[in-house]
Amino acid sequence: MDFLKKAYNLMPVLRESIARPVSGIPEGRTMRDGDSFMLDFGTHVVGYITLAVNVEKPGGDTADSPLAVEFKFYENLCEDRSKVYTGGMSRSWFQVQTVFADNPYEPLELPRRYAFRYVKITFPANTSYAVSYKDCFVRTVTSADDSKPAPLPAGTDPLLKEIDRVALLTLKNCMQTVFEDGPKRDRRLWLGDLYLQAKTNYCTFKNNDLVLRCLYLFAGLPHEDGCLSSAVFQEPVLRGQSWILHDYALFFAGVLADYYRAAGRKDVVEELWPVAFRQTEIAYEGFEKEGRRAPVNMYFIDWCPSLDKSCAALGILVFMLKEALYLAEIAGTEAQKETLRREIETVSETLAAMYDPSEKLFCTSSGQLSVHSQMWAVLAGVLDPAENASVMSETLRRKDLVSPVTPYAMHYFIEALIRSGLKDEAFHLIKEYWGGMLAKGCDCFPEVFVPGHPDASPYGSVAMNSYCHAWSCTPAYFIRTFGG
Amino acid sequence: MDFLKKAYNLMPVLRESIARPVSGIPEGRTMRDGDSFMLDFGTHVVGYITLAVNVEKPGGDTADSPLAVEFKFYENLCEDRSKVYTGGMSRSWFQVQTVFADNPYEPLELPRRYAFRYVKITFPANTSYAVSYKDCFVRTVTSADDSKPAPLPAGTDPLLKEIDRVALLTLKNCMQTVFEDGPKRDRRLWLGDLYLQAKTNYCTFKNNDLVLRCLYLFAGLPHEDGCLSSAVFQEPVLRGQSWILHDYALFFAGVLADYYRAAGRKDVVEELWPVAFRQTEIAYEGFEKEGRRAPVNMYFIDWCPSLDKSCAALGILVFMLKEALYLAEIAGTEAQKETLRREIETVSETLAAMYDPSEKLFCTSSGQLSVHSQMWAVLAGVLDPAENASVMSETLRRKDLVSPVTPYAMHYFIEALIRSGLKDEAFHLIKEYWGGMLAKGCDCFPEVFVPGHPDASPYGSVAMNSYCHAWSCTPAYFIRTFGG
Repeated sequence: MDFLKKAYNLMPVLRESIARPVSGIPEGRTMRDGDSFMLDFGTHVVGYITLAVNVEKPGGDTADSPLAVEFKFYENLCEDRSKVYTGGMSRSWFQVQTVFADNPYEPLELPRRYAFRYVKITFPANTSYAVSYKDCFVRTVTSADDSKPAPLPAGTDPLLKEIDRVALLTLKNCMQTVFEDGPKRDRRLWLGDLYLQAKTNYCTFKNNDLVLRCLYLFAGLPHEDGCLSSAVFQEPVLRGQSWILHDYALFFAGVLADYYRAAGRKDVVEELWPVAFRQTEIAYEGFEKEGRRAPVNMYFIDWCPSLDKSCAALGILVFMLKEALYLAEIAGTEAQKETLRREIETVSETLAAMYDPSEKLFCTSSGQLSVHSQMWAVLAGVLDPAENASVMSETLRRKDLVSPVTPYAMHYFIEALIRSGLKDEAFHLIKEYWGGMLAKGCDCFPEVFVPGHPDASPYGSVAMNSYCHAWSCTPAYFIRTFGG
Repeated sequence: MDFLKKAYNLMPVLRESIARPVSGIPEGRTMRDGDSFMLDFGTHVVGYITLAVNVEKPGGDTADSPLAVEFKFYENLCEDRSKVYTGGMSRSWFQVQTVFADNPYEPLELPRRYAFRYVKITFPANTSYAVSYKDCFVRTVTSADDSKPAPLPAGTDPLLKEIDRVALLTLKNCMQTVFEDGPKRDRRLWLGDLYLQAKTNYCTFKNNDLVLRCLYLFAGLPHEDGCLSSAVFQEPVLRGQSWILHDYALFFAGVLADYYRAAGRKDVVEELWPVAFRQTEIAYEGFEKEGRRAPVNMYFIDWCPSLDKSCAALGILVFMLKEALYLAEIAGTEAQKETLRREIETVSETLAAMYDPSEKLFCTSSGQLSVHSQMWAVLAGVLDPAENASVMSETLRRKDLVSPVTPYAMHYFIEALIRSGLKDEAFHLIKEYWGGMLAKGCDCFPEVFVPGHPDASPYGSVAMNSYCHAWSCTPAYFIRTFGG
């Protein structure tokens, strides 16, 4: 519980600012009985909305009935499909609210936080009076400090500059009292998302304490066997998600290692090392129990139903065992280091055996070729650098591989390219993939993006997708770490 | 403005109590995705509702999405017609609210006050968890003191006892920070309603200060010429309604006279007499301007579209000129008394001329016979007592007269019967009319009641009618003043 107390003490003060719509204001228009208008805030905002109207009542009389006001918020206009939603995730995530203002003269602030660029405001009830627009603003909230990210060097590619700007906004709007995955949904701290958010944070907003707070939250809410939850709920009650994902639990070592690299806090590594080490024990145990294979249902990898995860999962396991070994050098015992070295060797051998020289690619026992297998095997470093470069070149060349559907998985593809010396190709891909999102008019980077498939959704409806999703923010990390 | 300050200083503290449903509780039922239940509070309540649910999530996990909850409140189950409502009054009066609880574990209190007996609660969104009923209660509010009304004498007719009980509940639920007309709609202080509420209050809850507060509110918010508004808005801004109704303005003298009779406060009569006198001047001026006829569009009389108000309006004018003269004896000048006497004589002559000896009834120049004409002419006292009794007997006998459609107008019918010595007939009518409401299952007495026409509504829909309307509370006054 010490960890939770420490997390509590690191609760950030949220920074507020006021955002007003840039278009859609119904200047001078009197409205009633079904009239509506759509405000455009010009970009994605997260916060609390206030609407003020003038009451237009002839004869000097006052409004004589409550004012019904319906709000519908959209991160993306394609969300206007809630009526036909048949997906499995709760419709209660849709950002709608009808209120009845007993005093229509008072500015109306909604109590809940919303994430949106557009808000459609309707006056659904007939009234004896009309209303006109007076003001509307959003009190935005974030724990990111806008003044922290350094300007990009003059001469940076303009498209990369724009991708960086949107990546920063994406991360900023997800930085609240924790690193949220998405501010519309599900506003929660996930270990897999945190790993990428924290990486990007160190070279942008530099809110190291927020990362530390999140590490403490995970460390403070383990399952009985010490395994970490894949996510932490702050609301409705502070607790860990029941789901266990080995890759997410292993990422704890990755987040801790990156935190040490950025903040240099040996004391934190010493404090949290046992938690990180325990995750490697559990994941390795799973590997052994499965007969030296990955228990694939315990790995997330990507929102990609057809994916055979067996190879990618082993890649993550090796990669994170190596991160754990890095931490062990700081805080571990000789026995722990020895264990990790032996485990790395064992899993690496299994993974290396999946390399198919005839394809020049990693191939699962089911015969599936996927980008995911290649990128994680390469990141695991089980081949030598030249072979890695060959695998990644071949991955780029082939068009028949199962491909990432999320910017989250795409991150590791980029990372694998860069680590294999294919930086130009990596940045070309960043411009193509994230630039493709910009070309689609994205204000922030979304949870899911499949070029040519605008209706891709893991939830049965694009209306349920998150259009500001922090795991998509990593181009800012690549641009700022490896140049343009 | 002095009057408004005095009104402010008389602001009552509302008495609270807790009411819980008596049936409809879905014990042990798990609900989600469109499931609903209807709670019955057993009687009409006014206040603030709180709902608490248990979250039923298998596997020890917590709720992972907001909980959508839809509330629909009904004073009367016939109100469930909002979907087809096409009336002119604002749909915003319908008592509905959907909320999205970010924390479904917390009891949910809605911020607005509702008036209802039944509440239908629906969980409209699919969720990964179910909920079950934990608790629901209403924090009721009123400025009436339940301990004040004396018990009725043993041996009181059981039906009259029941009518009295429901009348008290009706008045109580309308007694808030002012005497409201109806707590569902429009929650406002009307002079015509106040006149009857105050009369009933003196022999029941005895909250004389609340009457005085209301007198000050009207006195403090006159039109430019000194004419009083027919209603006062406390919300959204404290101000008088723009409508002018001569009968309502004249009732100010009636309320003040009754207040003096009940509270004996000569100082209040002296203070407010100029306001009361000014209303008689304006109403009499209207009579003269119209060529010694009533400007009928300036009189309310009843919600009865076919009614020729010309006779009833003169009856009210005479009746209230006489109440003004009663006040003038306490606080007026000789000149004012002389004016009032002259006006009473003039209007009485005009009214008396409308008596048709062949019909033994008052008849308008349009040839219309209505209960309204008879009752107000009789209350005006322009005939001698024997003739009054004859008129009222004839009124009871004839079935072809235009009849009252509201308990408000019915009050004056009863009063005219009693003042004409027809007390038994009056109480028979009370039992028939208000007893008829009880037979229809009313928990409080409604705004409109037309025996045999359950769909009668001045608003184009019974869903918009008010089912707890204070102008219907006067049987308690009759029973307690004139016995059973």
